[in-house]
Amino acid sequence: MKADALASGLPSGSVGVVTPRAFEITQPLTLDCGRTLPQHTLMVETYGTLNAARSNAVLICHALSGDHHAAGVYAEDDRKPGWWDSAIGPGKPIDTRQFFVVALNNLGGCRGSTGPTTINPETGAAWGPDFPIITVRDWVRSQAMLADTLGIACWAAVVGGSLGGMQVMQWAIDCPTRLRHAIVIAAAPRASAQNIAFNEIARQAIISDPDFHDGRYAALGTKPSRGLKLARMLGHITYLSDDAMRARFGRLLRGGGDGRFSFNYEVEFEVESYLRYQGQSFVDRFDANTYLLMTKAIDYFDPARDYNDDLAAAFAQAQAKFLVIAFDADWRFAPSRSREIVNALVVADRDVSYVVIDSPLGHDDFLMPLPEYHAVLHGYLQRVAGAVGA
Amino acid sequence: MKADALASGLPSGSVGVVTPRAFEITQPLTLDCGRTLPQHTLMVETYGTLNAARSNAVLICHALSGDHHAAGVYAEDDRKPGWWDSAIGPGKPIDTRQFFVVALNNLGGCRGSTGPTTINPETGAAWGPDFPIITVRDWVRSQAMLADTLGIACWAAVVGGSLGGMQVMQWAIDCPTRLRHAIVIAAAPRASAQNIAFNEIARQAIISDPDFHDGRYAALGTKPSRGLKLARMLGHITYLSDDAMRARFGRLLRGGGDGRFSFNYEVEFEVESYLRYQGQSFVDRFDANTYLLMTKAIDYFDPARDYNDDLAAAFAQAQAKFLVIAFDADWRFAPSRSREIVNALVVADRDVSYVVIDSPLGHDDFLMPLPEYHAVLHGYLQRVAGAVGA
Repeated sequence: MKADALASGLPSGSVGVVTPRAFEITQPLTLDCGRTLPQHTLMVETYGTLNAARSNAVLICHALSGDHHAAGVYAEDDRKPGWWDSAIGPGKPIDTRQFFVVALNNLGGCRGSTGPTTINPETGAAWGPDFPIITVRDWVRSQAMLADTLGIACWAAVVGGSLGGMQVMQWAIDCPTRLRHAIVIAAAPRASAQNIAFNEIARQAIISDPDFHDGRYAALGTKPSRGLKLARMLGHITYLSDDAMRARFGRLLRGGGDGRFSFNYEVEFEVESYLRYQGQSFVDRFDANTYLLMTKAIDYFDPARDYNDDLAAAFAQAQAKFLVIAFDADWRFAPSRSREIVNALVVADRDVSYVVIDSPLGHDDFLMPLPEYHAVLHGYLQRVAGAVGA
Repeated sequence: MKADALASGLPSGSVGVVTPRAFEITQPLTLDCGRTLPQHTLMVETYGTLNAARSNAVLICHALSGDHHAAGVYAEDDRKPGWWDSAIGPGKPIDTRQFFVVALNNLGGCRGSTGPTTINPETGAAWGPDFPIITVRDWVRSQAMLADTLGIACWAAVVGGSLGGMQVMQWAIDCPTRLRHAIVIAAAPRASAQNIAFNEIARQAIISDPDFHDGRYAALGTKPSRGLKLARMLGHITYLSDDAMRARFGRLLRGGGDGRFSFNYEVEFEVESYLRYQGQSFVDRFDANTYLLMTKAIDYFDPARDYNDDLAAAFAQAQAKFLVIAFDADWRFAPSRSREIVNALVVADRDVSYVVIDSPLGHDDFLMPLPEYHAVLHGYLQRVAGAVGA
């Protein structure tokens, strides 16, 4: 793969050209909401090779808008690599020369896995709003079925940032014997009232869009673009710190010009231009029903709830060793939220390493190749590799 | 007034039953945008009595959604006093036994002052979106004309919180001889990129509402309720700190019940209920075009801009003494933003007192009767009263 990548002109750390694959999960999945999916499909990409002992598999859990395309490209001239290409590849922190890396589009997603945009076999039409609301626990159940399908009894590590980190914690609690290491990045042990407030406004923006049609927009050949755009713009506010926004945009006027205000409501400041662009490009690639479902999964995530609101009791179930990483400028899931995780793990007498990274951007930094961050990930995963004989 | 209030059963600190009055400003007002209003109307309430020396007048500048009804009630059985009733009245920090207090609805407002909802005399129809975008400097010009009309050459103090505090700063810079004291509360010397981002999303929520009709909704008998509701919900996120939201709402489920999740998108968490209520009640009392205009006034406010981005040079124009108050949990206009004001005032060799108040709520605390806060306001205003012979 590496030689191919070099020969083709791809960067040397790339996993190269990859192809997603659909896995049919034929085992029935009973969801937290009480409904059962008799079968479901998961879109998956894998990088690297599963060793003979089947001990070197790493699961990547994605965040709100992520998918199975975590690394590599879809063609040699594809300029847009997977969403975590900076961390996954030969010689990168999650080194595909050592690990067999599995990335999937979660159940309920909109990139090919069973979800609102796929066909409900019972009706022959797209699920749309009839698709059930999925929880983080449901995702762990579904991902465990995928592991069964792949013949992976125990992950060397389960890794994820943000909502992905919530899945990692749930894995460690619900399937203690099926992962050796849990790498929880830029996450929180539950959504705060403020997190829920942001999610609720995003949902209301979508639901109140007249083109939402109670979620049946696709059948009517439309989509709630205005609402989804607003939802994404709102999300982006929480992905950057105030300081990062100031450093990046300040009060700069777009296009420079003579520096005079326009006295209208057209885009004027650079930050407005950035948000509108981010919002619009998201509308072109994401489904509104999936967005609703993903935000609700965040709001519902609360592993302590199953243990009398005692997070340490929840973590007492876990057997994995933990690496918890926070970013100091992250105000969506601030370091204080990671400390809640770490404190509960310590109370539960679990093995945990905790790192806070100097962060230029805020929450968004979990996707960035910050040297300090990648050094920590790399160092820890070398320990994992040693433990599993990767 | 006090005896009346007691006799009527109103609280003893109330200014009692008040009546707003419309002031016609017949002097032409040339705005920052270049347009000129030949005349305009301002809705005004006053509390207390102007002394013979005309030296005891205090101007109250309102924030984004405020108006001229700052204190008192409209009828003896009116249960909803003015928005700053806690601070204005006999024996209160802004003591109406000493001061003649003037509160107005700003130009561009929607409570009776000339603005998008009033009639444009040139067309005979409501201004709607044709009303010009107003700046903080324009408000100071308009308020100075009101002072002329009232025969007030120099305010004992100009007082305001949030966007109101921005008006106070602009007063001190633009009309240095017309105020003795400037009381700037929970404000910032300019909007940050994050402040602008929140405002922009609020504006986009309104503008993208299909019922907005380029601002001509009133003529069509409708209004962009969905967008205005979202805008207000978003504002409320910034009025409370994350800790305050946690203390107030936590992850409590509305209505208690059996504690099970509903697995739908109806209101479920208490914080969702709060935001929806705040959003809806705002729609019933506020105009969307005014909301757009107010947020743009915040974004445009930048007194340093007129002085080569040197805030100290701007404040060097001022002759007033300053009291700057910040709230430690305020993240909309955090204490660090107030320190920028204070530092520039010190560099400019102005007289300034700076106080940071322990804050349970965040930005919203500028409206609250916190004992420490009101003690500071009261103490400072006693100094003002002494200086002006009130």
